[in-house]
Amino acid sequence: MLRYLCRGLDEVFLPVVLHQTEAGGKRIRPAFTLASCEAAGGREEDALVPAAMIELIHNYSLIMDDIIDKGMIRRGLPTVRAKYSEVMALLAGMFYREVLDEIAEDCPQPTKMRTLLIDTIKETIEGERLDILFEQAGRNEEYIVQNRFANVPLNLYLNMIGKKTAHLIQAACVAGGISANAKDSVVETLSKFGWSAGMAFQVIDDFLDVFGEKTGKEKGKDILEHKLGNAAIILSLEELSQEDKVRLMTVLRKERVTDTDAQQAFRLIAKTQTRARTQKLAFDFLKECKEALSELSESSGRTKLEALADFVVSRVY
Amino acid sequence: MLRYLCRGLDEVFLPVVLHQTEAGGKRIRPAFTLASCEAAGGREEDALVPAAMIELIHNYSLIMDDIIDKGMIRRGLPTVRAKYSEVMALLAGMFYREVLDEIAEDCPQPTKMRTLLIDTIKETIEGERLDILFEQAGRNEEYIVQNRFANVPLNLYLNMIGKKTAHLIQAACVAGGISANAKDSVVETLSKFGWSAGMAFQVIDDFLDVFGEKTGKEKGKDILEHKLGNAAIILSLEELSQEDKVRLMTVLRKERVTDTDAQQAFRLIAKTQTRARTQKLAFDFLKECKEALSELSESSGRTKLEALADFVVSRVY
Repeated sequence: MLRYLCRGLDEVFLPVVLHQTEAGGKRIRPAFTLASCEAAGGREEDALVPAAMIELIHNYSLIMDDIIDKGMIRRGLPTVRAKYSEVMALLAGMFYREVLDEIAEDCPQPTKMRTLLIDTIKETIEGERLDILFEQAGRNEEYIVQNRFANVPLNLYLNMIGKKTAHLIQAACVAGGISANAKDSVVETLSKFGWSAGMAFQVIDDFLDVFGEKTGKEKGKDILEHKLGNAAIILSLEELSQEDKVRLMTVLRKERVTDTDAQQAFRLIAKTQTRARTQKLAFDFLKECKEALSELSESSGRTKLEALADFVVSRVY
Repeated sequence: MLRYLCRGLDEVFLPVVLHQTEAGGKRIRPAFTLASCEAAGGREEDALVPAAMIELIHNYSLIMDDIIDKGMIRRGLPTVRAKYSEVMALLAGMFYREVLDEIAEDCPQPTKMRTLLIDTIKETIEGERLDILFEQAGRNEEYIVQNRFANVPLNLYLNMIGKKTAHLIQAACVAGGISANAKDSVVETLSKFGWSAGMAFQVIDDFLDVFGEKTGKEKGKDILEHKLGNAAIILSLEELSQEDKVRLMTVLRKERVTDTDAQQAFRLIAKTQTRARTQKLAFDFLKECKEALSELSESSGRTKLEALADFVVSRVY
């Protein structure tokens, strides 16, 4: 990946471009690609470039997300925008997108990979757009205020996280299948598996945001950022009395949400079965993705995919 | 172009995405593509999709530039960011980039077109990056302040506008040549022509910024935005006495440049031969691009290219 990113770059721009990839991260998405390739009967080495592509899509979206959310810290380090300025982060993000095309060209079946790439980024954009419009305050531009969602039923929430998160993990698995030159039915199975695993992933992320301790992330960040697009909040609103519902929404809609406000939100959520129901939602997706996997013949690749799915959800404990 | 942009878009996002293309503009870059195709012996219809690609690259860069420069008005209308918010503009820009890949796929010789696309956007990013670092104030992030250019010799300025502006017009002409399936030597000639025409284009833009009346643009915008990357300013600095040079740089380096400051800058520039020298610089590029054209056999396409180059520079009168 680095050789693609460094090519022909001015030395002053180089650290800006490298910052996001050097910051590390779990690298879970490329792991899905490598295991999927293996599970589809391919050699791991055929999926190395596609795995790099998947991780770079993720890094591209993180750079842009941090611009959108004015993120200061990610993975314990300053974000690209915080360290190098908003405009340089934007240029670095745009540069990543060009490198992605170059990487796709070097993948097995480049045309299929490029279609996957475009489709995935388009979905991510749409998911991010919905996530923004699910926010209840914090952005004052007329267009956003007018087009905000006043309420978000569970289905719409699932649609949003499908685009924002699950689609990329699905693409990670599909890229593995394409790398192995697998037949369509196998790619389709990997696709279903990846989508469900990705859904579980995001639900767990939402769970940790509200119930998590020691995740390294700020607890209640979604509440502080007025985000209605969180499984635990959506599920709570289903259960709460009309009065408490208004209280929770009032917190999300405050121009500045304080820690005290967030504590109130936690207390409201604690009145409900949300903790168990959010876990169940994630476990249902986990079950779904394992059922998809059972369509593949046994292999060390399949075992790895299962372990990855378990790992994703294990963060809940 | 519209059918690519509209495909599968949510109706709330649609106006955000369409705003930049519907705002119109001179559409001079696609005109270069169509005329180049004709001049290379191709049929205009073969260059329609490539011409759309070129115009969309331009629109993509405008959306992102307006985010970078916090632009409020373009082509007499609010910018995408001003009308729909910064974050929606960013998502729209990212969406344009995906559409660009789809358009490239539908061009004649898609692999060549895609290489041209990637190369052009990378150059534009680098040009924009240099243009930002040529600014003398207005951005306070540590990284930018530390890496700003304290002075910009003419060569470095030419390098910057080559990337920021000329490269896309060069690409417009090359795309026309590729559309016509022209032999390498013809594409090379179109490439030289386009580069010189593009250089003339930017020098004239800079000229109009400082000397222009009735261009519809704010006069002295570059000075108000602390931009050292303007031909007229670079050439003035070459001529001015040490004392006046310091005065001019002091204006550019003021945290807030007022209209009175800009007037002072204009008076300093008026002490020099800059007006004539900037025109000469543009005319030299015009001459260069016409010399390149003479390598092509006579055709109505060649005549159109000549007229386009003349038009670009005629804005000076």
